[in-house]
Amino acid sequence: MPRLVLIRHGQSAWNLENRFTGWWDVDVTEKGVEETRAAGRLMAAKGLDFDMTFTSLQTRAIKTLDLALEEMGRLWLPVEKDWHLNERHYGGLTGLNKAETAAKHGDDQVHIWRRSFDVPPPPMEPGSRYDLSNDRRYAGIDIPATESLKDTIARVLPYWNERIVPALKAGQRVLISAHGNSLRALVKHLSHIPDDDITSLEIPTGQPIVYELDDHLVATDRYYLSER
Amino acid sequence: MPRLVLIRHGQSAWNLENRFTGWWDVDVTEKGVEETRAAGRLMAAKGLDFDMTFTSLQTRAIKTLDLALEEMGRLWLPVEKDWHLNERHYGGLTGLNKAETAAKHGDDQVHIWRRSFDVPPPPMEPGSRYDLSNDRRYAGIDIPATESLKDTIARVLPYWNERIVPALKAGQRVLISAHGNSLRALVKHLSHIPDDDITSLEIPTGQPIVYELDDHLVATDRYYLSER
Repeated sequence: MPRLVLIRHGQSAWNLENRFTGWWDVDVTEKGVEETRAAGRLMAAKGLDFDMTFTSLQTRAIKTLDLALEEMGRLWLPVEKDWHLNERHYGGLTGLNKAETAAKHGDDQVHIWRRSFDVPPPPMEPGSRYDLSNDRRYAGIDIPATESLKDTIARVLPYWNERIVPALKAGQRVLISAHGNSLRALVKHLSHIPDDDITSLEIPTGQPIVYELDDHLVATDRYYLSER
Repeated sequence: MPRLVLIRHGQSAWNLENRFTGWWDVDVTEKGVEETRAAGRLMAAKGLDFDMTFTSLQTRAIKTLDLALEEMGRLWLPVEKDWHLNERHYGGLTGLNKAETAAKHGDDQVHIWRRSFDVPPPPMEPGSRYDLSNDRRYAGIDIPATESLKDTIARVLPYWNERIVPALKAGQRVLISAHGNSLRALVKHLSHIPDDDITSLEIPTGQPIVYELDDHLVATDRYYLSER
């Protein structure tokens, strides 16, 4: 039976400061490094192993994967890095903390952006500090100006179908290191979570989430590895 | 013009103890981590950049690559890991230090194994402590029982031709993180070094070696980045 493990990157500097991060390339903190290493040791201790790994183009997810694999003695596994697994793009909110966002847009509006399924934040202004259009890693990619969770799902799922499903169907054990919202996309899909519920599903940092799947990749079980 | 950078992994625990390492998966030391990070910072400071990277299936080379890329802000680059870039397999010498090897085989014989081009050390005995035939990373690979430098070159060059040359010809800037002898194979090929001379060419750990190549991938210059 195929097995899939999802892990959200370890705590980042902006998780800690409660800033909208999105595609901005913020590193993990010391605590993030530690929780990630602990996740790797836990996976090894529980006898989990992998054949193929996937991650985003963002440092915090790549480092999380590398640190976990290092603890497992599995740095030699293949890693596919792809922007489709990037975090939701927060548009013009990128870089703002909770207080700044509320001061600028009002608490009610911020709540809508955080918790609605299909309302995107205002677009990022071209040339603004967090504009990534000159970042070489995204050359040739139509970088979104902003994304709702629905938009994020709409680019995660084709990648899931094209790249990850074939690996699982070929019998590979897969580890995905990604972000709160790109993982929500996968959890929504695999666990059939309704639009209105997925926005409030919290995915903790550095905690391996295990999916047991049947041969049609239907989830038969989902659990935090730390709880079994 | 294509540019290629080679880097030998940072100091490993067995470099320090002067043990024959070969395919045994020894980690880098703290000093190794530091020299590797310094190499990454040097490459960034000198304006070097890459599109594609290659490394072996051995932790010390993979970690060297990851640490250098992290310092360069380039963890998102694609990495291809392949056993063809592994260190020379030292057969039955694996794990022995200089004194142990001399005591067991005599100084003259050890000198021959270290410095001859085509004399392999005695084969690794099946089931011995350093036998890797049950290591999953080499599943499906005909693991050598021992290798001369000539043998190492004979498996590095086909990989060079099949995987790295096409990347360079496509205009990609390539970084290879590998091992003393797999890099000797490449340096011998690119710089036309005779059989008798290549065995004594020392490749220092953690020092980026830059090759400037013409469009036919003929080397027009080779230098240590630290010296320019």
